[in-house]
This record gives sequence, C-alpha cells and structure tokens, in this order.
Amino acid sequence: MTVGTIFGVGLGPGDPDLMSVRADRLVRGARHVAYFRKAGRAGRARTIVGGMLRADAREIALEYPVTTEIPLEDPAYAECLSGFYAGVSQQLRDLARAGEDVVVLCEGDPFFYGSFMHLHARLQGHVPVRVIPAITGMSAAWTATDIPVTWGDDVMTVLPGTMPAAELARRMGDADAIVVMKLGRNLPKVRAALRAAGKLDHAWLVVCASMEGERVIPLSQAGDGAVPYFSIVIVHGQGRRP
Amino acid sequence: MTVGTIFGVGLGPGDPDLMSVRADRLVRGARHVAYFRKAGRAGRARTIVGGMLRADAREIALEYPVTTEIPLEDPAYAECLSGFYAGVSQQLRDLARAGEDVVVLCEGDPFFYGSFMHLHARLQGHVPVRVIPAITGMSAAWTATDIPVTWGDDVMTVLPGTMPAAELARRMGDADAIVVMKLGRNLPKVRAALRAAGKLDHAWLVVCASMEGERVIPLSQAGDGAVPYFSIVIVHGQGRRP
Repeated sequence: MTVGTIFGVGLGPGDPDLMSVRADRLVRGARHVAYFRKAGRAGRARTIVGGMLRADAREIALEYPVTTEIPLEDPAYAECLSGFYAGVSQQLRDLARAGEDVVVLCEGDPFFYGSFMHLHARLQGHVPVRVIPAITGMSAAWTATDIPVTWGDDVMTVLPGTMPAAELARRMGDADAIVVMKLGRNLPKVRAALRAAGKLDHAWLVVCASMEGERVIPLSQAGDGAVPYFSIVIVHGQGRRP
Repeated sequence: MTVGTIFGVGLGPGDPDLMSVRADRLVRGARHVAYFRKAGRAGRARTIVGGMLRADAREIALEYPVTTEIPLEDPAYAECLSGFYAGVSQQLRDLARAGEDVVVLCEGDPFFYGSFMHLHARLQGHVPVRVIPAITGMSAAWTATDIPVTWGDDVMTVLPGTMPAAELARRMGDADAIVVMKLGRNLPKVRAALRAAGKLDHAWLVVCASMEGERVIPLSQAGDGAVPYFSIVIVHGQGRRP
C-alpha cells in the first residue's frame, strides 16, 4: 500500500479567486479535508473554500483547546497547545499510513506565521508532507491600498503588533516599507509607535483585505477600538523610481 | 463606448500552477497581452504563461531600452527608463481609451519591487487600472527550503542585495527572519554580510524557486560566481513555538 501525503495548502488572503490553480485543484479533489477552528466557529479557512469540497469529502475540524482563556506567557498555554498539535499530528499520520491523502486548509501562506507549521514540524520525516505556498494577507493588503509597497532598494520589515511599543517604534524608524501583522487589541500601541517613529501620517489600516467588508483607512483616522486580528497596517516605501 | 481596463496581473514565482485562479482566467481570456522583456529575449513573464494565450491574442512586447549598459547611478539611466515608461503608458492608455482591456503580465507580485509599478504610477487617474496580487518569489523560496520562515513574534526583514555591505550586516543582525532579494553579482557581498552578522550558517540560497532547475543550497557551500538575479537568500526565524 502507498503511504498518503499530507498537503498544507495555502488558501491565500481570503478571496477564493486568489487561491492558486494548484490549491484550487487539491481542495476540489480532496477526500479528507482538515482545518483549524475555534470551538463553536465555522473556521476561517473552511469558510474560504465554501462550496468547493467534494460531496463525499470527510471533514476533520481541528478545534483549538484554548485561545485567549490562558495567557500566552503562561507555560500551561504552550503545554496545552503542544499536546493538541501532537494529537492532531498523530491523527493525520495514521490517515497517511492508511494510504489516504489529507488536505489541510491554511489561511494565507502556510510557512509565514501559519498554524500548519506546528503540524509540519511533527509530521516531517514520518510521512510525506507537501506545502503549497500562497498569496499572503500582506500582499492583499498593499494591493488594496492601490499603492506599491517597495521600490528600488527599499528595505521592508514585517513586525508583529504584539511586540513592546519601544521596540516597534525603533524598528519602524529603521525601515522604508513596514507591514504590521497581529493587530487586534494592539492597534493603539501600534499607532503610538508609528507616531513616535514619525510615520503615522503615511500609515494605512487594511481590514479584511480581499474579502467582503474590505476597508482601507488612513491609520491616523481609525478609531481606538480593537480590529479583527488579521487586519494589517501598511507603510509604503518611497524608494528610487525613474 | 466603454473605456477598457489595464490589468497588472501577478503571475507568481514561475510555476504556472501557482498563478491565482483569477490570473489564470484573465491571462487565458485576454485579447491584448503586454509584457516587459530584455531586447532579443523571450521574456520571463511571457515564458511563464507559455501556451495559455488565446490564438488571436495580440502580444505587446515592451523591450527595455537599457539594462546594464548605463550604470544605475548615471542620471541618463533614469532619464532613459522614464521616457520608456512614459511611452509604454501612452500606448496602453490609448488602447484602454479605444475600449480595449489589456493584461500586463507581471512576474511575482506586481506591487512588490515590480516593473508594473512604473506603469501604474503613470496610468492611475487616467484610465481604470487593476492589480492582481500574486505569490511572491520569496514565498516560493522559503517553501522550497521546506522550513517555516516566521514563528510567533519573529521580525522579518526583506533586504535588497544591492545595499552596502555594512548596512546589510547591521540589518541582518537586527532581524529574526531575513530575505535577501536582487542577488546576481551581489552574492559574495551578501555572504560576507551574513558572516559578519553571525548568521551565515543559517542561510540558504534558493535558485529558480518553483521552476525547472530549482536548487536549495546552504549559502556557506555556494560558490562565488554570480547567480541568477532572481535568486533569493533565506534565513529562517526561530521564534516561539509550542
């Protein structure tokens, strides 16, 4: 019997039309489709593929045992998630060893801050694993602003909004083009850091890039409330251009 | 008469299977297809779409008037290219005003160090322009290494290999994950900068990511010769993971 393959399939930023031709084909043909989701939610990755699955596809919802109930810094958080990823990996490994291919749906690009990486690390070397790259959320975000993000010799830095404010400001001051991910409740801190770096007036907030409800707002005019976690802040580079 | 639209269509890293579903559809349906190329060459973007064009598609090859004949620093270089982009933009604007849609083929993601940006800046506000994002060359490169590029709160910095060595080394030392683009003849300098930053042993050289002849080599073991300009160096982040 042939061992099956676990495919980490990047779905891109959210618009199914922005999935790659390969991802589209793998998703439509899959007999086993796995995806992460918060308990009780439909799951963002599952929502992207909507009605694309085969009628006889077997769905494997991988429900996070914890999201914000335990603080990220608490060792119990890492322990809880580690056990979860180990169990899921075992389940997928068993399917592959039984000869079945499994498509794991991944938002964005799987190897760029993706959840699939935690399975990849546990599956690699045990069963065949293949990753399909995808359009990142940040590409969809800068495209939504309708302004190029990097010119000539621009340096681009990608920052998680979770970092301390002073560290954010220092790094923002040192980059030409800036992408800030993981915003959520970090938005006021990120805005303050951009102000400290003298770049607030050039920053854009992009919410739901490429999806229904897409919004592009000058960050200086955005409110102080939380934004969806997958919102992105963009500062465009201003490098050399003929 | 309806004014046509100029589509800047990102083709992704090179494998046509990694084009988006939208890009695939636009390319296959286009009556006017424009692409940049060096004089006397087939053109990388044109090569990616191979036999996908309609039999009656009109091809518009946009041949650079200069590549390396004039040094980048010489004002004559910018002047020459600026005139070229202006002329091409006029040509596309005339087509749109005559009611024709035009698909401009773009390697990688159009707004990420892309040539289309120079047309976009000259067309915007005159005729409808739409940009289709794509999988970047760097996504294909880190996928080729089969190692995730960013974990947890990793900071990722994208550097053009054209920068001065000291500047490269300083920025390499300050980042978790590193992507170096625009290698070509800059490879020895980039390697020296990574050595100075203490990161050479963690760096990978990816040549022809997602294309025929794809190679992934530890950078410390790569030779000193020039590599294709679109080669990419990757240093993976090592951030938090449960």
